[in-house]
Amino acid sequence: MTGPARQVLKPGDTIGILGGGQLGRMLAMAAARLGLRCNVFSPDPDSPAFDVVQNAVCAEYADVEALEMFAADVDVITYEFENVPASAALVLAARKPVLPDYKILETTQDRLAEKDFVTGLGIGTAAYADVTSAQTLRAAIAKLGLPAVLKTRRFGYDGKGQVIIREGDDPDAAWEKLETRAAILEAFVPFEREVSVIAARGADGQVVCYDVTENEHRDHILKVSRVPAPVSDSVAGEARRIATSIADALNYVGVLAVEMFVVPGDGGATVLVNEIAPRVHNSGHWTLDGASVSQFEQHIRAIAGWPLAEPLRHGAVTMTNLIGHDVDDYARWLTVPGATVHLYGKRTALPGRKMGHVTVIEPR
Amino acid sequence: MTGPARQVLKPGDTIGILGGGQLGRMLAMAAARLGLRCNVFSPDPDSPAFDVVQNAVCAEYADVEALEMFAADVDVITYEFENVPASAALVLAARKPVLPDYKILETTQDRLAEKDFVTGLGIGTAAYADVTSAQTLRAAIAKLGLPAVLKTRRFGYDGKGQVIIREGDDPDAAWEKLETRAAILEAFVPFEREVSVIAARGADGQVVCYDVTENEHRDHILKVSRVPAPVSDSVAGEARRIATSIADALNYVGVLAVEMFVVPGDGGATVLVNEIAPRVHNSGHWTLDGASVSQFEQHIRAIAGWPLAEPLRHGAVTMTNLIGHDVDDYARWLTVPGATVHLYGKRTALPGRKMGHVTVIEPR
Repeated sequence: MTGPARQVLKPGDTIGILGGGQLGRMLAMAAARLGLRCNVFSPDPDSPAFDVVQNAVCAEYADVEALEMFAADVDVITYEFENVPASAALVLAARKPVLPDYKILETTQDRLAEKDFVTGLGIGTAAYADVTSAQTLRAAIAKLGLPAVLKTRRFGYDGKGQVIIREGDDPDAAWEKLETRAAILEAFVPFEREVSVIAARGADGQVVCYDVTENEHRDHILKVSRVPAPVSDSVAGEARRIATSIADALNYVGVLAVEMFVVPGDGGATVLVNEIAPRVHNSGHWTLDGASVSQFEQHIRAIAGWPLAEPLRHGAVTMTNLIGHDVDDYARWLTVPGATVHLYGKRTALPGRKMGHVTVIEPR
Repeated sequence: MTGPARQVLKPGDTIGILGGGQLGRMLAMAAARLGLRCNVFSPDPDSPAFDVVQNAVCAEYADVEALEMFAADVDVITYEFENVPASAALVLAARKPVLPDYKILETTQDRLAEKDFVTGLGIGTAAYADVTSAQTLRAAIAKLGLPAVLKTRRFGYDGKGQVIIREGDDPDAAWEKLETRAAILEAFVPFEREVSVIAARGADGQVVCYDVTENEHRDHILKVSRVPAPVSDSVAGEARRIATSIADALNYVGVLAVEMFVVPGDGGATVLVNEIAPRVHNSGHWTLDGASVSQFEQHIRAIAGWPLAEPLRHGAVTMTNLIGHDVDDYARWLTVPGATVHLYGKRTALPGRKMGHVTVIEPR
């Protein structure tokens, strides 16, 4: 079965968004600015994205009837998160175009498949090994050395589903703790900084990358992004080439983020890919205020079959996440000159929960 | 009867917006960015603002029951247009805070009252005279000379409700044409340019003005705004002082726009007030992309009882309205480097109808 033909949306047409978090919310607002409507599908009645659209569908991803009705009301479908169930994507893709192609998720939902894909493009990653048992874990440790990180192949995010194994730790205990049969061991990378590139790829194959962003994590969650990243032109160029290669190889339509490590070396720094996020990404939130066109609008343009923009950056930009009770400080942030405050409308500030972010621009 | 006490909103609280046009739409999106919800009240089922909120109330302004239910569901009420019926405002203000105070509308809905108010502050306007009959029109012409503009005192916008009277025209015919008993004659002002100042005034009395904007009208409708306006520092300072005086004198809470004429003179240019708009204004749309915080967000901050921002401008900004079939050109605008396209989601491109706008930023 082939899916419905690709099309170019007109103002007034409707985009279906799977997922109702802050990414869906910001996608819907970007679409509205372009005169496009959005319907949001999410199982969570408290979805932040529901607040900014007229048509919200609150149903489970396993609810085929709800998916069919959702598909009937929209012109194209996209998603705000990488763990869209394949069964739901299949139901939808038979009825309306789903962009980016959900088959990409088979690669990016699986850390092993993703690393195989990236290395297959001749792009470097941390050394890694497939782990399916305590026994294969021991073999992987023998090959990669310690410390190393054991990760579930699927459904990991923000540090969930991973265990660090150090010299002297018991590998069996680590294996038990992960509670999985499909894992990957990754060698530690002695990086000097973490960076990411947000790349948009249009339906016509045009790729536009934003400036390389430096990312600082705390407790495995992105805390601060700074752009431009303090890297050499050659490292920046390499990072953008990597993101472009990946977008091209996936025949991608929409925005993706490639998280990378910059590793110092005698012959200059090198760039290794850490992870691909097949969606708009937290490290691109600075583009909302720091660029003439945001990552959210680029994604909408791409899936609408519209031309991508060549975004203009307004200055040096710092984006700070408001995580958990950080958000209690919003009133102070409102008074910082040049700062723009974004709150996601979430009711409860749980630890580790992304409640909002702040962008501060320093003029050129 | 005194109204409900003024309050400070919390994220998650709800703002009621009267009016569902593009201004309401952009206000609602600014509120969402700050984690505030909006309910929109509008008699037009095709209201652009309905698309970006979960709760839309489609009812007439005379529907007291609908107004009461609307008031019950929100924490504060504001409006996107200056012709809110006083009866509706009364019903609402008895139940929830209405900001800006709707009593201000008694001044700004009436061209004569507005001019009396402005001149009472010692601020210049075009010479004007009250006109209630063909006879008083003749007396006014004798006093002010010709050419002059005869305008209805109430409900005029975008050139509607006005007639130019030139030397040799028949005043009686002009009077008949206007179909009113309450009018004002305004002397022609030999201005060198039209400018406006967008001013925000917080609940605490703080006033923040955006940079002075130059405005170019075609067929009485704003076509292009440019910021900064090419005026001297002293003219810019005077324009901002005038806007600040007006906001203070009205004890205003929210964003207002003051449209002004810059008139050349031997002792340097002077500034005359043309019109006050007690709301966010088309000539401030550039702030959405050209400043760190937009006029829409400033308005929301003010009515929420939150601190105003000191907005940072990103460069020289040009805002072009897409009027009527101008909007058919949106695809070309999408490809202009540094341009940001806004479409309002209106279904039909009628002549004179504001369908969207485009901001182009030239970096400093």
